[in-house]
Amino acid sequence: MANDELVLLDCWASMFGMRLRIALAEKEIKYEYKEEDLWNKSPLLLQMNPIHKKIPVLIHNGKPICESIIGVEYIDEVWKDKAPFLPSDPYDRAEARFWADYIDKKLNDTARKIWGANGEEQEAGKKEFIECLKVLEGVLGEKPYFGGDNFGFVDIALIGFYSWFHSYETYGNFSIEAECPKFVAWAKRCMQRDSVAKSLPDQHKVLEYAKTLRQKFGLE
Amino acid sequence: MANDELVLLDCWASMFGMRLRIALAEKEIKYEYKEEDLWNKSPLLLQMNPIHKKIPVLIHNGKPICESIIGVEYIDEVWKDKAPFLPSDPYDRAEARFWADYIDKKLNDTARKIWGANGEEQEAGKKEFIECLKVLEGVLGEKPYFGGDNFGFVDIALIGFYSWFHSYETYGNFSIEAECPKFVAWAKRCMQRDSVAKSLPDQHKVLEYAKTLRQKFGLE
Repeated sequence: MANDELVLLDCWASMFGMRLRIALAEKEIKYEYKEEDLWNKSPLLLQMNPIHKKIPVLIHNGKPICESIIGVEYIDEVWKDKAPFLPSDPYDRAEARFWADYIDKKLNDTARKIWGANGEEQEAGKKEFIECLKVLEGVLGEKPYFGGDNFGFVDIALIGFYSWFHSYETYGNFSIEAECPKFVAWAKRCMQRDSVAKSLPDQHKVLEYAKTLRQKFGLE
Repeated sequence: MANDELVLLDCWASMFGMRLRIALAEKEIKYEYKEEDLWNKSPLLLQMNPIHKKIPVLIHNGKPICESIIGVEYIDEVWKDKAPFLPSDPYDRAEARFWADYIDKKLNDTARKIWGANGEEQEAGKKEFIECLKVLEGVLGEKPYFGGDNFGFVDIALIGFYSWFHSYETYGNFSIEAECPKFVAWAKRCMQRDSVAKSLPDQHKVLEYAKTLRQKFGLE
């Protein structure tokens, strides 16, 4: 795919954007990164994702791919010769898609309540978040990655949340490693990969960002 | 795939179950249909979908595939030689996945409010529902199907909602055909296919079902 023009509209703190950054890094694809101000979205973002008006958007030769999981699968299908994300067996593919969908439907909502709410809602979010991580720990089992011996689709879908762990722990007043040691060991294993380490922001910087969001939302 | 054992755990009125019924019919695959009582779920359903505890679940040689869109893609990948649902081009595939995801995220919620709420919430649902259908009409354009000349992935994801149109119109007190004539023309075109006609229940029977649900939920 020579002469490809690739642009990523993203926000540095987005775990959804991180998925595409990691996927592109795993495939060793060069692209132009454009940071979006989510409180003042660019005309390009609104033009490229008129339906959801959200980052991340991958723009490939002028054509947008929206929704991060769809983007990861797109990257896997276009650059299919290097480091496949999805397994080849249809049942294993369906399972990987199921867990990526679970992360989007369950983990994201519960995680958000930990820093984006107070009181009972926050406590409920914390409890559900730990339950979700324990479910995922069960899926991981004794494998090094969700993709088995290979870092794959579910690993890419999930690891971005790790950059927010310090924020969850700070606002939720708990230790994720004490609750889910195998999950944290997996996350640290992923962080040893260049593709992940370079795509995830510093956890302390994310905490500062979470703090400004809480102030914006009147939570402190 | 000779000697395959296929079981579908489903509920007749579910537009998500209809997706799998249509997909299996398009591929001419035989399966055992098991109706679930959603107020008294079977041990098999709880065992096969412990995470979401929802129908539909496709069980293939004893192994469950949960979430209807994932199931449709699974069927397409396993029985790939007949009537492909997804296009072959990665960008076209990403687009089809985007619209199936849109249907799940937006259309379903708004449609539910029309029969599953009253007053302002119902009115808001009706307005959003029509907006969604108009967006989808724009995507369809002048093509016979969302899949172009071929009935495809987005068609399968979407057509089940048509069996609820009489319920939406009855509780929302409006005519969908007056608002979105091209959408209804598309739905009628799909209904001419055996796979669809045999998989969708009668709209009047769905209305009776919606009425019992409204009574259960204390809405009338």
